[in-house]
Amino acid sequence: VEQTCSAFGLTTVEFGELRQRADAAKATAYCPYSNFHVGAVLLTRAGAYISGANVENASYPVTTCAERVAFGKAITEGHRGFKAVAVATDISPPASPCGMCRQCIREFCDLTTPIIMFDKDGNYSVMRLEVLLPLSFGPESLGVPSAA
Amino acid sequence: VEQTCSAFGLTTVEFGELRQRADAAKATAYCPYSNFHVGAVLLTRAGAYISGANVENASYPVTTCAERVAFGKAITEGHRGFKAVAVATDISPPASPCGMCRQCIREFCDLTTPIIMFDKDGNYSVMRLEVLLPLSFGPESLGVPSAA
Amino acid sequence: VEQTCSAFGLTTVEFGELRQRADAAKATAYCPYSNFHVGAVLLTRAGAYISGANVENASYPVTTCAERVAFGKAITEGHRGFKAVAVATDISPPASPCGMCRQCIREFCDLTTPIIMFDKDGNYSVMRLEVLLPLSFGPESLGVPSAA
Amino acid sequence: VEQTCSAFGLTTVEFGELRQRADAAKATAYCPYSNFHVGAVLLTRAGAYISGANVENASYPVTTCAERVAFGKAITEGHRGFKAVAVATDISPPASPCGMCRQCIREFCDLTTPIIMFDKDGNYSVMRLEVLLPLSFGPESLGVPSAA
Ligand SMILES: [Zn+2]
Ligand SMILES: [Zn+2]
Ligand SMILES: [Zn+2]
Ligand SMILES: [Zn+2]
Repeated sequence: VEQTCSAFGLTTVEFGELRQRADAAKATAYCPYSNFHVGAVLLTRAGAYISGANVENASYPVTTCAERVAFGKAITEGHRGFKAVAVATDISPPASPCGMCRQCIREFCDLTTPIIMFDKDGNYSVMRLEVLLPLSFGPESLGVPSAA
Repeated sequence: VEQTCSAFGLTTVEFGELRQRADAAKATAYCPYSNFHVGAVLLTRAGAYISGANVENASYPVTTCAERVAFGKAITEGHRGFKAVAVATDISPPASPCGMCRQCIREFCDLTTPIIMFDKDGNYSVMRLEVLLPLSFGPESLGVPSAA
Repeated sequence: VEQTCSAFGLTTVEFGELRQRADAAKATAYCPYSNFHVGAVLLTRAGAYISGANVENASYPVTTCAERVAFGKAITEGHRGFKAVAVATDISPPASPCGMCRQCIREFCDLTTPIIMFDKDGNYSVMRLEVLLPLSFGPESLGVPSAA
Repeated sequence: VEQTCSAFGLTTVEFGELRQRADAAKATAYCPYSNFHVGAVLLTRAGAYISGANVENASYPVTTCAERVAFGKAITEGHRGFKAVAVATDISPPASPCGMCRQCIREFCDLTTPIIMFDKDGNYSVMRLEVLLPLSFGPESLGVPSAA
């Protein structure tokens, strides 16, 4: 954990908060169709934590994943500038964000932002956005100022 | 307004709050692609108000509409039992929720729930969910207990 | 059936084709997550039939419903001007298009277009788009010429 | 091109077909909202080519990208086993599939499948799926047999 924190510019307290909050967020999921609980937490450069979980729908494509629920909250509550994204699931090895969520993260985060993926026991993998979504396009590609 | 409130089981104070909060929520939208600001507010039977706005994406289908942002927040923060849904836009006549959002509302609200649509001047239309999305299917259709 | 055809401007041959093709389309679904097969068929004013079925994804929101698969095919193959939309499922009473699909239909069809919903035995309901998605918005609302 | 073909198991004829068909598919897009034309082509191991283009909607999240239109067609027409995916746009450097589409490709293709991205002049980049969507999850993660 210390090496991870050092490599990605986080304090161990921040890392601990991300782990605990991502785990807790799982319990807030509405997932009667998949029974697959996902928790997500965003940490802003200003030090705020914003949580989300998956909210499913009888029409599957109307589902919103945990990461997009968290960004929906964060953006509409005025947060900008994200330092880390964490997700937690009940499987092992840890699950990564789906491609749709990687694209959502891309809209609001620098390419170097670490994405921390926790498994059911709190073990984790971590990768930067640019590794999880290489060659990506975002606001700049469409002439819109970056929201990162 | 008084007639509307009486017909739909709202107080005039609640109606006023919904109008003011839906209008205010528009300013929290992230919509650099459409420049179309939408605000949404949910009122729970317990008296809580939860706001949201549209959060767009360079990949258009990754966009989350205002209503779904609001439900994402509400559900993951533990709210259940909604008394009314309000949306506000900057056009006139007022815009209604898109079909995708009507399906999201369907997941969490009774069919009689009023959906209030405010235009740029605060004028409004109101229709029950069962009118905006007749013959709908929801959790019960898939053997899942209703979340309304 | 004859009354339905007369009311909605279809021939009984067209109606029979829609019923048979919607039923057949169900078998082409990829739905290992929901096991819910949906078939959809579009009939153009020029007399062409275009079929689709649901194509699901391990990330539920990446799923494309049957109706949207059919419109994706039809539009990119140059079809415009739709006379009827039919959907078929394995339940009874018949399932209706989800809200997201009603919005997709709205983009490409007149408000009076009949949407025919077949149950597992070929029994059906039929409603015009304007009834299934009242107060809708579409291309015109955003200053784009109608694609209907 | 010869080196690319050799590295990714394609013939130069196949590569030429992919380039020409992806370019041609752009003209079939329905994109009045973004004016951003995208063409996609799938090549199956059996030698079939299936094309698609983006089909947008007044409600942006109801949009279907070119890649997902092509897979919708291909899967419901019975194709399985894809050898390559090609996309073409009118910009340079070439645009890559959005994250949502990478997840769709993941459902139906081996991780080693090449994704060829053509720019407006037919120049290209190519990357394997496992590079564009590392650490991905798919059907197997949910106990469903791979559809690749
Ligand atoms: Zn996701
Ligand atoms: Zn919507
Ligand atoms: Zn649908
Ligand atoms: Zn895409």
